[in-house]
Amino acid sequence: MPHIELGNDAPGIVGLMLYRPDTAKVLNELAEILLRGENTLTRGERELIASYVSDLNRCRFCHGSHAAFAAAQLPGGAETVAQACADLDTADISAKMKALLRVAGAVQRIGTDVTAALVEAARENGATDREIHDTVLIAAAFCMYNRYVDGLGTYAPEDPKAYEEMAGLIVERGYGASVAARQEASAG
Amino acid sequence: MPHIELGNDAPGIVGLMLYRPDTAKVLNELAEILLRGENTLTRGERELIASYVSDLNRCRFCHGSHAAFAAAQLPGGAETVAQACADLDTADISAKMKALLRVAGAVQRIGTDVTAALVEAARENGATDREIHDTVLIAAAFCMYNRYVDGLGTYAPEDPKAYEEMAGLIVERGYGASVAARQEASAG
Repeated sequence: MPHIELGNDAPGIVGLMLYRPDTAKVLNELAEILLRGENTLTRGERELIASYVSDLNRCRFCHGSHAAFAAAQLPGGAETVAQACADLDTADISAKMKALLRVAGAVQRIGTDVTAALVEAARENGATDREIHDTVLIAAAFCMYNRYVDGLGTYAPEDPKAYEEMAGLIVERGYGASVAARQEASAG
Repeated sequence: MPHIELGNDAPGIVGLMLYRPDTAKVLNELAEILLRGENTLTRGERELIASYVSDLNRCRFCHGSHAAFAAAQLPGGAETVAQACADLDTADISAKMKALLRVAGAVQRIGTDVTAALVEAARENGATDREIHDTVLIAAAFCMYNRYVDGLGTYAPEDPKAYEEMAGLIVERGYGASVAARQEASAG
């Protein structure tokens, strides 16, 4: 049960977004720019960073959601996401993505853990400055989303189908679609 | 020296915001809503939460900035901010703010550390559900801002005057003013 009375029974961040629509708008815009906007990293690669960090933060709702969003947009699907979260060294992803996920893992611990050596390794494997910037900001943003969702004790569905349904909405319509769908349902 | 080439020498998040203006816009909007928008917590109280969390994350730029912004808007000024960061128990702030800062401190560690008991203590000391929500989101947001600033190795001025100058701009003109001032200076 959430720590505060949200006035709705939507899971995870969706319930929080229905509770406070003005912050919801900005939080969705940030996710839309970072995860779906114009970028040399694919949408699947960026969702992989989001799910990787959410897994490190042990946030079941965010990891479940973004692992499903990554799986829907990444070659190799759910298996690749699971491999990356279990063991970067042996995962079937590019050397560039491994190096960027190591940067993301450092950000998850604390910003000053991102060393020049980690950044240089990403660059040697082909990452641009802009990709390094966006990796750090995506990882940092999920340290916010994860804490927001768990800090207010929101509900995380156990059934993987719940996350796959959200993936359908997000991949097709973008961030904000889950909240909009709930609003339409309660208005209808 | 920052980990990536920013193309400007502005300190902390200001340099990052000049580098990527589209994310800057959203990050400033979020800070504006959370720290300066309509709220039953004063602007000083909300800046105190921001500086408290930034101190726990050992982010010198964000702590320096938001401690100055809090000091400028809080009864007791810089002394009260320093007391709260040093020892909540003995700090000269309300019991409600102490309880909310304990919630913020739990969020800084990890979302699931926010227990029903911490939330109940805030409520017993007069915090509303909305104030608890906003405390969690402010604390979570600073776990993002702090990691963004330190994860890219940005420069943090040593001189307290640098932060006091920013405080003047932010308190009078709001978030976005530091970036706008730099843009005007380089255009002029």
